Amino acid sequence: MNTENNLHIPDVQGSPDKRELPITRVGVRDIQLPIKFNDGRAVQHTVAMAEMTVHLPHDKKGTHMSRFIEILNEMAEFSLDNLGEIHSTMLSRLSAEEGTINLAFPYFLEKSAPVSGMKSVMNYEVRISSDGRADDYGVYAEITVPVTSLCPCSKEISEYGAHNQRSHIIISILYDRNNPITLAELAAIGENGGSCPIWATLKRPDEKFVTERAYENPKFVEDIVRDVAIALNADERISWYSVSSENFESIHNHSAYAIIECDKRL
Amino acid sequence: MNTENNLHIPDVQGSPDKRELPITRVGVRDIQLPIKFNDGRAVQHTVAMAEMTVHLPHDKKGTHMSRFIEILNEMAEFSLDNLGEIHSTMLSRLSAEEGTINLAFPYFLEKSAPVSGMKSVMNYEVRISSDGRADDYGVYAEITVPVTSLCPCSKEISEYGAHNQRSHIIISILYDRNNPITLAELAAIGENGGSCPIWATLKRPDEKFVTERAYENPKFVEDIVRDVAIALNADERISWYSVSSENFESIHNHSAYAIIECDKRL
Amino acid sequence: MNTENNLHIPDVQGSPDKRELPITRVGVRDIQLPIKFNDGRAVQHTVAMAEMTVHLPHDKKGTHMSRFIEILNEMAEFSLDNLGEIHSTMLSRLSAEEGTINLAFPYFLEKSAPVSGMKSVMNYEVRISSDGRADDYGVYAEITVPVTSLCPCSKEISEYGAHNQRSHIIISILYDRNNPITLAELAAIGENGGSCPIWATLKRPDEKFVTERAYENPKFVEDIVRDVAIALNADERISWYSVSSENFESIHNHSAYAIIECDKRL
Amino acid sequence: MNTENNLHIPDVQGSPDKRELPITRVGVRDIQLPIKFNDGRAVQHTVAMAEMTVHLPHDKKGTHMSRFIEILNEMAEFSLDNLGEIHSTMLSRLSAEEGTINLAFPYFLEKSAPVSGMKSVMNYEVRISSDGRADDYGVYAEITVPVTSLCPCSKEISEYGAHNQRSHIIISILYDRNNPITLAELAAIGENGGSCPIWATLKRPDEKFVTERAYENPKFVEDIVRDVAIALNADERISWYSVSSENFESIHNHSAYAIIECDKRL
Repeated sequence: MNTENNLHIPDVQGSPDKRELPITRVGVRDIQLPIKFNDGRAVQHTVAMAEMTVHLPHDKKGTHMSRFIEILNEMAEFSLDNLGEIHSTMLSRLSAEEGTINLAFPYFLEKSAPVSGMKSVMNYEVRISSDGRADDYGVYAEITVPVTSLCPCSKEISEYGAHNQRSHIIISILYDRNNPITLAELAAIGENGGSCPIWATLKRPDEKFVTERAYENPKFVEDIVRDVAIALNADERISWYSVSSENFESIHNHSAYAIIECDKRL
Repeated sequence: MNTENNLHIPDVQGSPDKRELPITRVGVRDIQLPIKFNDGRAVQHTVAMAEMTVHLPHDKKGTHMSRFIEILNEMAEFSLDNLGEIHSTMLSRLSAEEGTINLAFPYFLEKSAPVSGMKSVMNYEVRISSDGRADDYGVYAEITVPVTSLCPCSKEISEYGAHNQRSHIIISILYDRNNPITLAELAAIGENGGSCPIWATLKRPDEKFVTERAYENPKFVEDIVRDVAIALNADERISWYSVSSENFESIHNHSAYAIIECDKRL
Repeated sequence: MNTENNLHIPDVQGSPDKRELPITRVGVRDIQLPIKFNDGRAVQHTVAMAEMTVHLPHDKKGTHMSRFIEILNEMAEFSLDNLGEIHSTMLSRLSAEEGTINLAFPYFLEKSAPVSGMKSVMNYEVRISSDGRADDYGVYAEITVPVTSLCPCSKEISEYGAHNQRSHIIISILYDRNNPITLAELAAIGENGGSCPIWATLKRPDEKFVTERAYENPKFVEDIVRDVAIALNADERISWYSVSSENFESIHNHSAYAIIECDKRL
Repeated sequence: MNTENNLHIPDVQGSPDKRELPITRVGVRDIQLPIKFNDGRAVQHTVAMAEMTVHLPHDKKGTHMSRFIEILNEMAEFSLDNLGEIHSTMLSRLSAEEGTINLAFPYFLEKSAPVSGMKSVMNYEVRISSDGRADDYGVYAEITVPVTSLCPCSKEISEYGAHNQRSHIIISILYDRNNPITLAELAAIGENGGSCPIWATLKRPDEKFVTERAYENPKFVEDIVRDVAIALNADERISWYSVSSENFESIHNHSAYAIIECDKRL
C-alpha cells in the first residue's frame, strides 16, 4: 500500500471518496527502527516500535502511508522535547488536522547497588506519545518501573517471612516542555513507591539490604499506587497522570492490580 | 494477598486509610478459567482470561481480592445478557460504587465453505466487558474478525496479481440487552467488510472462489473500516461502536491500520 | 493452500518434484480449536493450539494441508492414550513415513487450600505431543507448574524476611501407555519441588501457612530442579524426562533458570 | 540470588551438595541490554535479550549468577567472531565444563527499493548462540527473514489473482569463523527463497514490480524451504543448517509450515 506520486501510474489513494465517513485515525504500526533517544541528560541508542496515524477527512479515499516512514527515517534523534515538532511535521506532510504518534522502546539507566555501590544497567519499558491537533496537542511519557512488593497481610499474620514478588509500576504523565520532568525522575518516583527497588546485579551485602528493606516496608498494591500518587500530586510539573501497579503474586497464578488516574486541571 | 475474615487473624485490608486518596480501580487480572459461554443461540465451552476491578474509597486501606474469584467460580455460565448481573453482584459483594469486568476468550463458529459447503470451525477472539456504577453501567462486546484484504493500488498499477494479506478487523459495540445483537452477526459484518472472508478449511473450488472474490473486491484499510462503519451505522441496535482494521502487509514488515469511533448518542 | 482432489481443477500439490530434497517436516500450525481432554480420570473442556507436520519425500511437490484439519475435527476427545492413534491416522492419511503432533492447552485441576480446605481451580499449561514413525514413535507430556520459590541465600544472610517469587517448573516426560502417569501426578511432583505450592484462592489461615511453609523450605533454582529430578528418577514409569525451573526473581528484572535432562535408557 | 564472595556473609551457593545430581544447565535469562553488534562490515547499536547457562557438577550446590551479568557488561561489542571468546570466558569464570550463550536482537540492513532505488531500513530478528565445552563448542547464527509468498495452487486454479501473504523464513547455520558468512548474505539467501523480498518503503513503480514479481514466482511453503536449502547446500562455508518457513495464510486463520534440517558432516 505505497502511495507517493509517480508519473503515469494512477494515484488510487488520492481519488475522492463519497461515503461521507471521516476516519478517526489511519496510518502505520509495528515499524521497528533503531533510534537515538535524548533523555535530556544524554543520548542513548535503543530500538523503537513506532505507530503513526492521522485523521482522514470524509472526502479523501486514503492516506499516504510511506510518508510516515520517511518522517521517521529523517529524524536524527528523538526526545520528549522534539516529539511535538515531529507531530507538527506529520500533520503538515499528511495534510491532516490531527493525529497520534507512539514510540515504545527499552530505556536504560545505570544504577549503583545500595551497599556495595556496584554499578549495573537497569532496563525500563518507555512509551512517548503525542496526540491532538497542530495547535492543541499533548505529549505523554510512560515508564514501566519493576520493583519488589511485599505483602503487609502476609507479614502481619505469619510467624516469620512474608510473600513478596516482582511488580510493574506504570507511570504515565502529560509532559510539559516548559516545565520538564525526566524519565530518570519518574523511574525514581516509581522505585520509591514499591517495597524496595530492584537492580540488575547485587553483591551479598546488597541482597541482605534489599531483603530487609522490603520486609520493613510492606505494601499492598493499593499502597503502591497511593504512595506514587502522593509523589505525583506534589510535583507541580505534572498536570495529568495515571499510575498503575501489577503485582505478579508469588502465592497465586494471577496478578493483583490497581490504578489511580488524576487530572489536576479539573 | 488474601482477604476474608477469619477469627483471631488480623484483617489488615479492612483497616482505615488516611492518605485521602481514592483508587480508581483495584482488583485482580490474569485469572484463567474454563467457562461456558451462552451466545444467545447455544452454549459453548471455552477458556477465559478475566479481570475484575472496583473503585476503592479514600478511607479504605484495601479491597478483598479473593471475593472476585469466588464470584467467577459461582457462575454456571456467562453471556452478554448476564454480565450486568455479575457486575451488580461484584459491586455489592465488594461494597463498591463502581467497577469494571473484562472477560477475553476464543469464540468458535461453524462455517460452511463458499462452494463445497464443507463445514469447519472458525476461531475469533472475543472480549465482553462491563463498566460503571450499579445504576449506570454499560456492557460491551468486542470481536476480532480475521479476513483477507487485497490492495486496490497494487491491483490497479500491476499487469497481473495484487498483493493481499491477512487483516484483523476489531469491532467493539455498546450492547443493548433490550435490543440484542449476536457475536455471529458482528462476525458477519466484519467478514463482509474485508476483500473476502476466510475459512479454516477450503476445497479447491472454494480456494478458486476466495482468490477471485478478493481480486474482484479490492480494499484499502480505509475502505474496510468505512464499509464496516456503514453497516454499523445502519444498525439501530448499536448506539456506540468502534471499528479498526490492521492489515499485516504482505509487501512490508509492518502493518497498515485504521480506526473509526462513533457515538451515535452525541 | 488447499489441496484435496476435485474434478477438473488441477492438483498442483500432487505433481512430482525434481529438486531431490526431502522435507523434514511440513504441515500446519496455530490451529486453534475447542477440545475435550480426557486426563484418565475425567473429561474436561478446553481450547488447544495444534501443530501437525509430516515428512515429505524428495519426489513429492507438496503435502495435503486440509487433511490435517479434517483429522482434528473428527476427534471426539484427546488424551495421552489416544494420541498415538491420531499419530497413526495422520501418517496413514498423509501417506507419510513419519511426523509430529503438538497440542498445547490450559489444563485445570481443582485444589483444596491447605488449611481452610476451600476449593478453587488452578490452571496449568500442558503440551502433549507425538513424534516419529508409524512403528516407532514417542508420546510426550509436558506441564508447567507455577510455584513459590524462596531464596536460601537471602534467608541466611538477612536478619528477617527472604526474597521469594513465582517460578515456573516445566516437567516433560516420555509417556508410557502401558505404565501411565497422570498430569495430576506430574503437577504434584512439581508442586512438591518448589518452596511452596500456590492456589487460586486462599483464606487468611492459608496465607499464613503458605508464607511460613515457603520460609521453612528455601530453595535455589538448582535445588528445585534437583528435587524434582529425584522424584522423577524414583518413578519407574518414566524412562526419559527433562525438568526446568524459571524463577522470576523479585529482586532483579531477569530470571534465574536451571534444567536437568535425563534419559534413563542410556 | 546473588552470589559473590563477601567477608562475614556466608556463601550458601558455594557449599557442597550431596544429591549426586549434576545440572545440565543453570544460569540467567531475560537479561535485556543495549549492545554494539559488529556484523563483519560495520558496527550497529541494538538491544539484546541474553541467556547464559553452564553445566553444574553434582557436588556443587549452586552457580554464581551475578558473574554472568558482569561478563555481559564488560563486552565492548558482540560479533559472531568473538562469541567463542565470550563462551570461553564464561566457562572459565564460572569454573564450568560446558555451557550455552544465547543473544537475540533486532538487526537492521539498509535496502534499496527494486525500481526507484529509494533507501529504507529493514528489520530482521537475529539470534547468535554458542554451545558446548571449552575445547569443543559451536557458534550458531539464526536470522528471521520476512518475505512475500504467493500460492501456486491459487494462481493455477483461478481466473485472476492469487492469494499471497507475509512469510517468515528462519535460517540457522553453524558458523565457521575461518570461513565466515555474513548475516546480510543469509538475509539475501532467504529473500531469494520467497516469491518476492519485502521492503520498508516502496514507491508506486516498486509496488508494481513486487506485485508482478510475486505473481511470476509462485511458491508453496515446501518450495520455499527447498529453494533456500539448495542455496545453503551449495555454500561450502556451511556444514550444518536448518531452514523453516511459516506462511501466515491470507485465506486461513492458521499457518502453513515447513522445515528442512541438514547436517552435511554426516
